[in-house]
Amino acid sequence: MSVTAAIGFSAAGVAAGIKPDALDVAVIVADAPSPTAGVFTLNQAAAAPVVLDRESLGRSALKRGIVINSGCANAATGDQGIANGVAMAGTLADQIGCERGDVLVSSTGTIGPQLPMDLVLPGIRSAASRRSPTEESATLAARAILTTDSVVKQSVVRSNGWVVGGMSKGSGMVRPNMATMLAFLTTDALVEPTVLNDILRAAVEVSFNSLNIDGCESTNDSVIAMASGASHIVPDHDEFAAAMEEVCRDLALQMAADAEGTSRVVTINLTGGADDADSRALGRTVADSALVRSSFYGGDVNWGRILGALGTSAIDIDPGRITVEYEGVVVFERGMGAGFDEAALLETIETGDFSITIDMGSGDGRARVVTTDLTPEYVAFNGERS
Amino acid sequence: MSVTAAIGFSAAGVAAGIKPDALDVAVIVADAPSPTAGVFTLNQAAAAPVVLDRESLGRSALKRGIVINSGCANAATGDQGIANGVAMAGTLADQIGCERGDVLVSSTGTIGPQLPMDLVLPGIRSAASRRSPTEESATLAARAILTTDSVVKQSVVRSNGWVVGGMSKGSGMVRPNMATMLAFLTTDALVEPTVLNDILRAAVEVSFNSLNIDGCESTNDSVIAMASGASHIVPDHDEFAAAMEEVCRDLALQMAADAEGTSRVVTINLTGGADDADSRALGRTVADSALVRSSFYGGDVNWGRILGALGTSAIDIDPGRITVEYEGVVVFERGMGAGFDEAALLETIETGDFSITIDMGSGDGRARVVTTDLTPEYVAFNGERS
Repeated sequence: MSVTAAIGFSAAGVAAGIKPDALDVAVIVADAPSPTAGVFTLNQAAAAPVVLDRESLGRSALKRGIVINSGCANAATGDQGIANGVAMAGTLADQIGCERGDVLVSSTGTIGPQLPMDLVLPGIRSAASRRSPTEESATLAARAILTTDSVVKQSVVRSNGWVVGGMSKGSGMVRPNMATMLAFLTTDALVEPTVLNDILRAAVEVSFNSLNIDGCESTNDSVIAMASGASHIVPDHDEFAAAMEEVCRDLALQMAADAEGTSRVVTINLTGGADDADSRALGRTVADSALVRSSFYGGDVNWGRILGALGTSAIDIDPGRITVEYEGVVVFERGMGAGFDEAALLETIETGDFSITIDMGSGDGRARVVTTDLTPEYVAFNGERS
Repeated sequence: MSVTAAIGFSAAGVAAGIKPDALDVAVIVADAPSPTAGVFTLNQAAAAPVVLDRESLGRSALKRGIVINSGCANAATGDQGIANGVAMAGTLADQIGCERGDVLVSSTGTIGPQLPMDLVLPGIRSAASRRSPTEESATLAARAILTTDSVVKQSVVRSNGWVVGGMSKGSGMVRPNMATMLAFLTTDALVEPTVLNDILRAAVEVSFNSLNIDGCESTNDSVIAMASGASHIVPDHDEFAAAMEEVCRDLALQMAADAEGTSRVVTINLTGGADDADSRALGRTVADSALVRSSFYGGDVNWGRILGALGTSAIDIDPGRITVEYEGVVVFERGMGAGFDEAALLETIETGDFSITIDMGSGDGRARVVTTDLTPEYVAFNGERS
């Protein structure tokens, strides 16, 4: 039930007509102004809704709602795009009785075209009037934010008297101009805006930001969390952080598993970096490599490419101290290939998901990065004209 | 005739048996100690020959010869790999009557295995004894350095009394563990080692370093130039630099055209960057993007992905000042998609090579980056087990 699992929220998803035959407008509404935090793309060509939400959260961290559309990214749309984003927020605000500045906006879909506002605004009014705290409404909202995703992505973690729920969309940039990952979390725990913000940032770092499907941060990527406080319970800090992290990780794994045109999810455990940040950066360098990911597709044990990828990092490495394991089998150590039963290992990783552990031998840092293989189908998808 | 076009050089290519049925050992020998310069991979997991050549050139810039093998990269081979590289240089030195330190070494092929020295050393002796200044010998050498290349790559530029010639190998990292690009240039112009070094570095920057096939610098990449001075002519500095650049560019284009599993070469002209270095970095960011290169494969006009890629750069950009043209047709300007005859443009770029111009609107910098499309065939190649 995702975003309505926590008390104090209602949601809806409707078909406004932006997309031919699918739900395309969603709203999430809090009963009262609620602490809200957002983490947004670092892409310098950020879409209009990202620009607007950053400004809005800079003014105030208390929000009433979020309005989301799929089918059009409202990116690279100039001043008209900004005006359209403002009108979306204003329309939901009018319906729920708050200021325009109390509503955030998210969009996902094709980059370039302007939003068909004659369809979008009536859609928002319809969604606002249909919103409810039911599981059905939350699922319709989760469906309305999808683009090329094949399944709805929702997750809930319940604790002592409070709940964290969330929904997301994204499955790799599998169609031209369909770039974005969006995630929305709600909780009824009673938390300060700054605490919510810090915990969300940390959770995003180890989940969505550790998920690599196409090595690219899109124009629209956004993760937004709202805390209604309706449980009246102040959660234990670490317990709350763990719950937020679990929901984010779960949603990220659902996205990896749904990456169209990929055949497996590969988890890269990077240990022994100077610190966690270095470990994460090194893990991403491996996860970003088209050559490494092609070898995952073929089920090849190709530690040479892993080493080659690590060697391109800006972080100092010492190949002589690196150990590489596939599914627990050491394949490279002390600067050279290790002796191992190649036939047995190839059989182990022939199909399905697997994991690699890379130990840098330099410190106590560690990170886990999830990626997918790069397949001919992926490229064929991405080569199709929009 | 490439490396023997200049006076004062001999060459040979032989089949030593490292590869099943192909030439795999080449030598280039100067009649006398000659100013020599090298540009090597920045990959931190550099192969043994790269480590050895860097040290050797650090001691002295005067060299007598280069010994090259294909079929084995001598990379990730530890101390044994270093010893093998030293033995290769020593064997050629013995044959041509010089010190081991007067000979450079290059290898290309599979990462990991040790060189079969019982085959390599007799091969080097055979190559040394067969070397000659003929066109045939140069072409055999050019053939002996190939791995997955489908054609020999050679280039010659003649000027007033002096010549620059070169050969190269590399066609994208199209087979597992077959990573490297190698290029060897010779000239009979009379130039100082420091001048040769500066001019080689500049030429590599605008040619091989602007060529993007897999966005990855391998463990073995090397470009080496030798100047015999046998023409006794001190060339005009700019004229010599232009000739070196032309040979490097020509070899780089031959490599791009030979990239297996790709269907077209796309030239990205990046203008209006703050300076040339920024322009080159921005052009490479676009050329590195798997999503942009997938759209090239499909013949799609996908300026959204180009903008998204530029947005991920560490260099500040202003989307509102960027203009993007495909084959001279403006498709994006002033922050928005431009009106253009899409059907006509799609027909223009349906097949074959094309060019894109991206103007950043920020300065006078400019750069040209050559890349290829990313195809399902490329991924299928790279997914094959080694």
